[in-house]
Amino acid sequence: MDSGQSTSLWWERPDLRYEKKHLTFDDSLLEPLARSMGTPLFIYSSRRIRHNLERLHTALGKTGTLFSLFYAMKANRFQPLLTFIKSTGLCGIDACSPEEVFLARACGFQPESISFTATSLSSQDLDLILRHDSLIINCDSISMIRKIGERCPGREIGIRLNPAMGVGYGEVDLLRYSGDRTTKFGIYREQFDEAVDTARAYGLPITRIHFHTGCGYLTSQLETWSRIITTCLDMAKALPQLQTVNLGGGLGLPHTPHDKPLDLEAWASVIHSHFSGTGIRVELEPGDFIVKDSGILLLEVNMVEKKQDRIFVGVNGGFNLAMEPAFYSLPCEPLPCSLSVDKDLAFTSENMTPVTIAGNINEALDIWAENHLLPPMAEGDILALINAGGYASAMSSNHCLRGAFREMILVG
Amino acid sequence: MDSGQSTSLWWERPDLRYEKKHLTFDDSLLEPLARSMGTPLFIYSSRRIRHNLERLHTALGKTGTLFSLFYAMKANRFQPLLTFIKSTGLCGIDACSPEEVFLARACGFQPESISFTATSLSSQDLDLILRHDSLIINCDSISMIRKIGERCPGREIGIRLNPAMGVGYGEVDLLRYSGDRTTKFGIYREQFDEAVDTARAYGLPITRIHFHTGCGYLTSQLETWSRIITTCLDMAKALPQLQTVNLGGGLGLPHTPHDKPLDLEAWASVIHSHFSGTGIRVELEPGDFIVKDSGILLLEVNMVEKKQDRIFVGVNGGFNLAMEPAFYSLPCEPLPCSLSVDKDLAFTSENMTPVTIAGNINEALDIWAENHLLPPMAEGDILALINAGGYASAMSSNHCLRGAFREMILVG
Repeated sequence: MDSGQSTSLWWERPDLRYEKKHLTFDDSLLEPLARSMGTPLFIYSSRRIRHNLERLHTALGKTGTLFSLFYAMKANRFQPLLTFIKSTGLCGIDACSPEEVFLARACGFQPESISFTATSLSSQDLDLILRHDSLIINCDSISMIRKIGERCPGREIGIRLNPAMGVGYGEVDLLRYSGDRTTKFGIYREQFDEAVDTARAYGLPITRIHFHTGCGYLTSQLETWSRIITTCLDMAKALPQLQTVNLGGGLGLPHTPHDKPLDLEAWASVIHSHFSGTGIRVELEPGDFIVKDSGILLLEVNMVEKKQDRIFVGVNGGFNLAMEPAFYSLPCEPLPCSLSVDKDLAFTSENMTPVTIAGNINEALDIWAENHLLPPMAEGDILALINAGGYASAMSSNHCLRGAFREMILVG
Repeated sequence: MDSGQSTSLWWERPDLRYEKKHLTFDDSLLEPLARSMGTPLFIYSSRRIRHNLERLHTALGKTGTLFSLFYAMKANRFQPLLTFIKSTGLCGIDACSPEEVFLARACGFQPESISFTATSLSSQDLDLILRHDSLIINCDSISMIRKIGERCPGREIGIRLNPAMGVGYGEVDLLRYSGDRTTKFGIYREQFDEAVDTARAYGLPITRIHFHTGCGYLTSQLETWSRIITTCLDMAKALPQLQTVNLGGGLGLPHTPHDKPLDLEAWASVIHSHFSGTGIRVELEPGDFIVKDSGILLLEVNMVEKKQDRIFVGVNGGFNLAMEPAFYSLPCEPLPCSLSVDKDLAFTSENMTPVTIAGNINEALDIWAENHLLPPMAEGDILALINAGGYASAMSSNHCLRGAFREMILVG
């Protein structure tokens, strides 16, 4: 093709695309970053993070409701990234352990902008979180309501409800939060009265309900999501002091060419339909939605070799650095950082070969992608895995002592 | 019951059992250890580790073959444990990354007692391992043979073969090493001649073959295992300098009352049938078999509460500390460290209740056991998870900043 308009690959967007032969992210060429910083390397784009936060603000701004965002830091706790998020002024933090509260504070967040929702808390955990006076606390169990009551009678609390219904990405069973099976989260309708009575006994006003009902939901699941909201609001009728409803996180993003992105207008209109004119503040706790497509993992190719009937591309990082492909079968999109010919030619079916991309951990499940069509790769090439900004470095382990990596954030 | 003989629970053994109301491990009461050291706490028994090594020595001693054991340190790299293993004089180390080689040396192992078998090695990895002159090296790919040839022409090597057949624990698909699907490991028959030619071109004598064909195999799979050995020895006929055959690891141990332990006599007789009188040295790389049942994870109960129709027992540690139950559905056996009545009464069906044991990570999959029958548990009780010595702390992550734990080894 000549210098005219290039056709887009499904994952391409203005800040992540090939410029002729080179993959660029947030105006930076990825390969030179890999060469200077070394691999494995996670690169995060502050611009994409801000863009994702702004997309949510724009959509929510049209709902006519008061709203607050809390970034779920368990998705990615790289400290420069946390401080960047704080500096945008667009959201607070959702924390789920005492140490997350301390880290959020260390990175610049005030207690009143930290929303804490956790499970199976110890008494020691509670002592630690209650040191932060204005922390927003949601109780996941009656036991937690009681323990807070014993320590801080009269304190304002939220309670986490379990609507016994769920949404989520595809058929990934391990990510199912609620639904058919009773899960460990929140307070079910069967125990709701006891929870309210316990709070009342300690004089704890319940000013907030919280519910989180799945991970990675997309547009087709908004109807179910709306029914879940109805169920929870129905339970909340018994709470005269209710001021705020926290709808949790779980907003999905596309992992394959077949996934349609979450329609934020449709999503916001669900919120509008439930909360407009009610005076209730809506809170949301996006994690992956903010950071997943803001991060890329760069690895170096160590080996390209046929084994039996397949071509294996071996790289210098394994599933211990980003476990979703191995454990949840969440596809990642592996891409060469540099091509030998321009993109439009490289990604034609004649020029691509099916390869299996394998990590360097001595376990069979350590496979990044199987039978994936790629332009030719060679030893020394740099491979990018997109959508590596969430639940990757944050869940990494030092398995086989292969846990070393670097992280960096691009700040424009 | 009176002071007479007590009936055994399926997992009980002389060094791990209830003494009336108290769970003991290697002659130590577990609850006081949890109270003084704090939880989460991994406790390893040096006596059990030695016992497992000695069981293998005894079985192998009857095969009439030369043999060597290498402990697969990726199962557990707690440094005191590594040095204890070195001090027994019963085995070397199986390492799968450069840093594992360095750590093994740091803990007392000489390079000549370290067997290195890895996958997708970078050039930098090779430079690091080749600094250790007498290291035993098995090549997993033709690319690795070539890279060693370029750096150390004439060096002795082993090659890892892939027999395209596998064994393993139950139906755990993620643990399947080889078999129907082409895996990333070793050299297949289709590429064998090229591998031999590459070694010959660099003057690398191939004195060893290596094959590892699954994780957790038990007695019923020994026939398949024997066929795998036949296949590999058939490929090895083309290697005139062959001196050693490394049969990998993968020896299983029971996870449920229904699993029969691996019959070591039957296992050894397979080795005898293939190698007795051949002059070939047999090497083995057990990991889990040495450490898994030598370790226990102690957690404290934070909460006992009904949710919908189920009783949840919440504990102060989650799947990020020991991922096999959540990701591989490998059952662990949760046990109270102290009982309110003697064991024989506590574990009767009238006195047990089905409970779901849940960790403190904000994810639905963070469940230790579901609908598990246990004597009554209360907040503050200590729960033991047995079979936590392998692939637990070694694969742990700091997810949700909940990665803190202690480890200790009991040395009699």
